[in-house]
Amino acid sequence: MEKTPITVAYGDGIGPEIMQATLDILQAGGAQLDIETIEIGEKVYLSGNSAGIAPEAWESLRRTKVFLKAPITTPQGGGFKSLNVTTRKVLGLFANVRPCVAYSPFVSTKHPAMDVVIVRENEEDLYAGIEHQQTQEVVQCLKLISRPGTEKIIRYAFEYARAYGRKKVTCFSKDNIMKQTDGLFHKVFDEVAAEYPELENEHWIVDIGAAKLADTPEVFDVIVMPNLYGDILSDVAAQIAGSVGLAGSANIGQEVAMFEAIHGSAPRRAGQNLANPSGLLLGSIMMLVHIGQNEAAERVHNAWLKTLEDGIHTYDIFDASVSTEKVGTREFAQA
Amino acid sequence: MEKTPITVAYGDGIGPEIMQATLDILQAGGAQLDIETIEIGEKVYLSGNSAGIAPEAWESLRRTKVFLKAPITTPQGGGFKSLNVTTRKVLGLFANVRPCVAYSPFVSTKHPAMDVVIVRENEEDLYAGIEHQQTQEVVQCLKLISRPGTEKIIRYAFEYARAYGRKKVTCFSKDNIMKQTDGLFHKVFDEVAAEYPELENEHWIVDIGAAKLADTPEVFDVIVMPNLYGDILSDVAAQIAGSVGLAGSANIGQEVAMFEAIHGSAPRRAGQNLANPSGLLLGSIMMLVHIGQNEAAERVHNAWLKTLEDGIHTYDIFDASVSTEKVGTREFAQA
Ligand SMILES: CC(C)[C@H](C(=O)O)[C@@H](O)C(=O)O
Ligand SMILES: CC(C)[C@H](C(=O)O)[C@@H](O)C(=O)O
Repeated sequence: MEKTPITVAYGDGIGPEIMQATLDILQAGGAQLDIETIEIGEKVYLSGNSAGIAPEAWESLRRTKVFLKAPITTPQGGGFKSLNVTTRKVLGLFANVRPCVAYSPFVSTKHPAMDVVIVRENEEDLYAGIEHQQTQEVVQCLKLISRPGTEKIIRYAFEYARAYGRKKVTCFSKDNIMKQTDGLFHKVFDEVAAEYPELENEHWIVDIGAAKLADTPEVFDVIVMPNLYGDILSDVAAQIAGSVGLAGSANIGQEVAMFEAIHGSAPRRAGQNLANPSGLLLGSIMMLVHIGQNEAAERVHNAWLKTLEDGIHTYDIFDASVSTEKVGTREFAQA
Repeated sequence: MEKTPITVAYGDGIGPEIMQATLDILQAGGAQLDIETIEIGEKVYLSGNSAGIAPEAWESLRRTKVFLKAPITTPQGGGFKSLNVTTRKVLGLFANVRPCVAYSPFVSTKHPAMDVVIVRENEEDLYAGIEHQQTQEVVQCLKLISRPGTEKIIRYAFEYARAYGRKKVTCFSKDNIMKQTDGLFHKVFDEVAAEYPELENEHWIVDIGAAKLADTPEVFDVIVMPNLYGDILSDVAAQIAGSVGLAGSANIGQEVAMFEAIHGSAPRRAGQNLANPSGLLLGSIMMLVHIGQNEAAERVHNAWLKTLEDGIHTYDIFDASVSTEKVGTREFAQA
């Protein structure tokens, strides 16, 4: 089997440890990868590049079109731009896909039947990043919703549901208040939903939808929503499923796709062999499926599940009632 | 004791039933109220008044300065403005206070130790309601944060915490992305917090803060946040504490204050003696405290708790393992 070229960034904080663990596991699982490494994040920022990424790195990404990215640190102050947001924008990564699944009884959760995929619009909304100061005392930020952007994400959600055998797509928006912006999102949802008669569809106002999600997540399947709601509610969903440390995500563009953990770089835990590589590993499994290495994806996923089921847990999800062994990043990867 | 003049609106859907139940309970509890009734909501909207409220009603509100409001229905379509938003704006109700408390074991919840008060900014943010269509395919909404508005709500949160013997005030914002708007909110929080050295203070980025709130709400006490986050997260908090049907809220302005349930008018359940008056009742207890009738407030609150504890529950919170009797709105009120 030919090796697929991918671009890898080791990131900051706990990034290098969990990336090493992840790559070791992928290799053991038979993934065929030809890895180009790029430098992004803290060092690049501090070298005076406010975007945190060098021109050569973009070239690698445009060449391989597949990016496995560890969490990075944006230095405080000094007008550094969030690299997460920059990458999404420059590469047109319009869909942020975040599966939030309970692994009960192996990871403790109050919502054992939960299996939700949040499909978050990833370029528009308040993340367009247009802010300005009107007077000394008044600042504003622009929320942007476009029809093409909305159509793209909603169609993606329905295509995803179809491809993965899901039954229902739910839309969250606040169109009782934002009649034009969130109203457009809802309207386009209804239009696109009509093209997928075999899938159930429903709409919730985001406040009460979020309440339902936090209380009885098992009633949801795929949920599509604008950027900021998706940011907040994917953290909620991942956490109540078990832990934000256990969720991976795919950022999908027309050409390039980026895979990552949803958690951050936890600088205080760096270098201590404490970190749980599961979020990045689950992101990398989504990557294997994306590049067509489904068998390796399944092997790695099964090995990961087996390790969880055997009760071999890193400290963050360690729970005396279900875990048998508390291990470090390296030992978890070996298992 | 002199009677305090208040303005009451019976609202739509289940509104009239739960208002009648609430007023009966308040009277039985010894509240001294001189009630003026106003007409707002569906009938007023459909008579051609797109604001849903008549000029005489505003006069009553400006006179009594205390408003007990049942849920109302905004008719679909036709450009009707949300009366909730109109009232908040016209009367300058800048603080929306939403206590979310677990009544375990009498009402089932996965979070028995929860006792959180959400203090939601109530006038600014995306609720300023400035939306426009730029091109056929692009719509925008303006998010507004001002220093005076932010100072007012944050100071209110700290004063509330001090008055009610709370220990900690937490701020949620997304200032890693919205550096100017949410950044200002965070900055003003830090400034005001410094004036209350006896209270703990902390800040969370809203995504991970929301995840923590949904997972382990018992670590929070008072949480202050911009309007839209407060809208979404107060529904989340109320629901996981037991039910959105069990939460009351106070909308506080410089002059006038409005008290209500946080749930809607549930038109499908109207007139069936099914509704739980608890949300509105808890709102009305906050009103009694506001007008200085603390003894009546305590009597009504104790009677309500006793009814819950006796297992006399309306259908929405009925749970065979803790409830003894399933009752209607009227029977609940009598109990
Ligand atoms: C780090 C931050 C910019 C990012 C976001 O807000 O999108 C993160 O919270 C996420 O969800 O990926
Ligand atoms: C009905 C709606 C306008 C309102 C809001 O969004 O503020 C409601 O959800 C609330 O929380 O009081």
